[in-house]
Amino acid sequence: MRCACGVDVHSHVVPENFPAYIGRSMPADWPSMAPAQPCHRSVMIAGKNYRTVVDKCWDVARRLEDLPGMGLGLQVMSPMPELLSYWMAPADAQQLLRFLNDQIAAMVADSAGRLAGLGAVPLQDMDLALRELEYVVKTLGFPGVEVGSNINGVPIGAPAFDPFFEACEALGAAVFVHAIRPAGMERLVGPAPLQQVLGYPGDVGLAAASVITTNLLVCRPALRIAFSHGGGTLASLLPRLQQGWGVFPALREAVLQAPAEQARRLFYDTLVFDEPMLRHLVDRFGDTQLMVGTDYPFNFHDHTPVQRIEAAGFDDAVTARLVQHNAERFLGRQKVTTP
Amino acid sequence: MRCACGVDVHSHVVPENFPAYIGRSMPADWPSMAPAQPCHRSVMIAGKNYRTVVDKCWDVARRLEDLPGMGLGLQVMSPMPELLSYWMAPADAQQLLRFLNDQIAAMVADSAGRLAGLGAVPLQDMDLALRELEYVVKTLGFPGVEVGSNINGVPIGAPAFDPFFEACEALGAAVFVHAIRPAGMERLVGPAPLQQVLGYPGDVGLAAASVITTNLLVCRPALRIAFSHGGGTLASLLPRLQQGWGVFPALREAVLQAPAEQARRLFYDTLVFDEPMLRHLVDRFGDTQLMVGTDYPFNFHDHTPVQRIEAAGFDDAVTARLVQHNAERFLGRQKVTTP
Repeated sequence: MRCACGVDVHSHVVPENFPAYIGRSMPADWPSMAPAQPCHRSVMIAGKNYRTVVDKCWDVARRLEDLPGMGLGLQVMSPMPELLSYWMAPADAQQLLRFLNDQIAAMVADSAGRLAGLGAVPLQDMDLALRELEYVVKTLGFPGVEVGSNINGVPIGAPAFDPFFEACEALGAAVFVHAIRPAGMERLVGPAPLQQVLGYPGDVGLAAASVITTNLLVCRPALRIAFSHGGGTLASLLPRLQQGWGVFPALREAVLQAPAEQARRLFYDTLVFDEPMLRHLVDRFGDTQLMVGTDYPFNFHDHTPVQRIEAAGFDDAVTARLVQHNAERFLGRQKVTTP
Repeated sequence: MRCACGVDVHSHVVPENFPAYIGRSMPADWPSMAPAQPCHRSVMIAGKNYRTVVDKCWDVARRLEDLPGMGLGLQVMSPMPELLSYWMAPADAQQLLRFLNDQIAAMVADSAGRLAGLGAVPLQDMDLALRELEYVVKTLGFPGVEVGSNINGVPIGAPAFDPFFEACEALGAAVFVHAIRPAGMERLVGPAPLQQVLGYPGDVGLAAASVITTNLLVCRPALRIAFSHGGGTLASLLPRLQQGWGVFPALREAVLQAPAEQARRLFYDTLVFDEPMLRHLVDRFGDTQLMVGTDYPFNFHDHTPVQRIEAAGFDDAVTARLVQHNAERFLGRQKVTTP
């Protein structure tokens, strides 16, 4: 590995503890933490263990220890997606997300510039979401926010979310779209992890497609938006969407710019665990649009994200873009020199 | 183009007329045909125009005229998927599918060996399905059957369908899995054709994944099964499934052979409209597993399937496999010389 200068845009935070609920009637799915094996705690939701997570989810020192070995100089953290709480009453979700945003800000402040944060906003209520977005960007100084691939089943490209994207564009806030509560669960045959393994990429792929079919980047050209897990299934959907756009008049009328071109305006992480797929994504989306993503520190994370890019056989300039510079552009940090 | 010797495993039939319903109570979705513009008729289902189709759907002479220009020596026809009728009462579906199977047989008989048929069976009732399978293979002499990616929402890899696959293996019947009534429709934002354009590949991808997670080819190694639309999103899902199989003990326990290896035992058509994707699929699935698919004669079909393979830059031996020999193997026709 040449340097530890990589920028990981896809890593997650779970706080060590959740706050007591302040309000009249605590939602059944208000999260709490329970002890687990050493260095671990269990996120309890609605009386069940949602996931047992390692202390690296909240411990800055433990986290920073791991960065050099992964080739990373900067890691961008966002909430564990299940905490985005779109399904809670808006005020309750806002209370929880404000706590998470402040927790992330505290971790960033402790990191000597080696961690950055993406906040969360309660998109089930546009007014609250816009207020929290402003807090996250203006008060906390975050480069952007994480959002779900769908908000209670409505894909993120749906027109209902345009006021949010308008505000993000105006504020210069980057948007990182992460898979959440995916469609297609009824098509999975096997154990529970298939939700993450097969459901997530499908939902992200359709979310990215929804942004293309609604011309988000055509209408908001300054917006910076990225999709997790290499855009999920988008790479497989895109040639067919492009061809269909040429065949079906209704699609040609609705979609204002060729899907294949629109796809090259979106950002994606590299979290696909596979060099041939990485080369295929760079070919499809452009070497300016991919950036490191790891899902650190969850079990199912990429331990060698930078080495994988270096092993894929790109030339040095492309490798540098994928490892570092594309992420800096996505985050609006072009002029910042990483340590 | 070197020869017109290609074998298209993915083309469709709609009959010129549907039969009158024989039974007590005609289902509301029993199909009928209505006149449309010249050379076209409209498939009416539940009082609505489901799709207006060209006479090539039923006219053998018109169909045969088109084959040489597409580089095809043999075309395999299966019912338009919406006619598979899994949602009808079993006896009603059986009545309709028997009519379709006989219609396809008549077209094959008129084609001087240039058309072949895949039949349909009412998989909502296993006993009827097994009887129709036997009729299709033993009486009509078809090389196999078309099935949906899901049967009323249950993915084709689910254990419920194992008796069907057991019979297919015993009879040597090839199984062609086609997208139908896909999952994820609630994630599409745009006009109706997005169902075919984005929904279909997602459902086929999850169907192929379901066959892998239930070890179908591990347990039935002689079965020949193919997936439409290049396997849909499977190529994007597979590296993550492979990695997840290595990470999650529950997946490792459930899935008996590496997903990446299992995927190389399935067949796929080449219907992806894109040379880089075609190369990626050959790399992923193996040059022995892909075969021409066109969706002929529907609007959204590949007019230059063989030329596209020839343009993709494979060597002559691989091109010949993709254009002709893999399909012959899938169909159980290895020893038959095409004209």
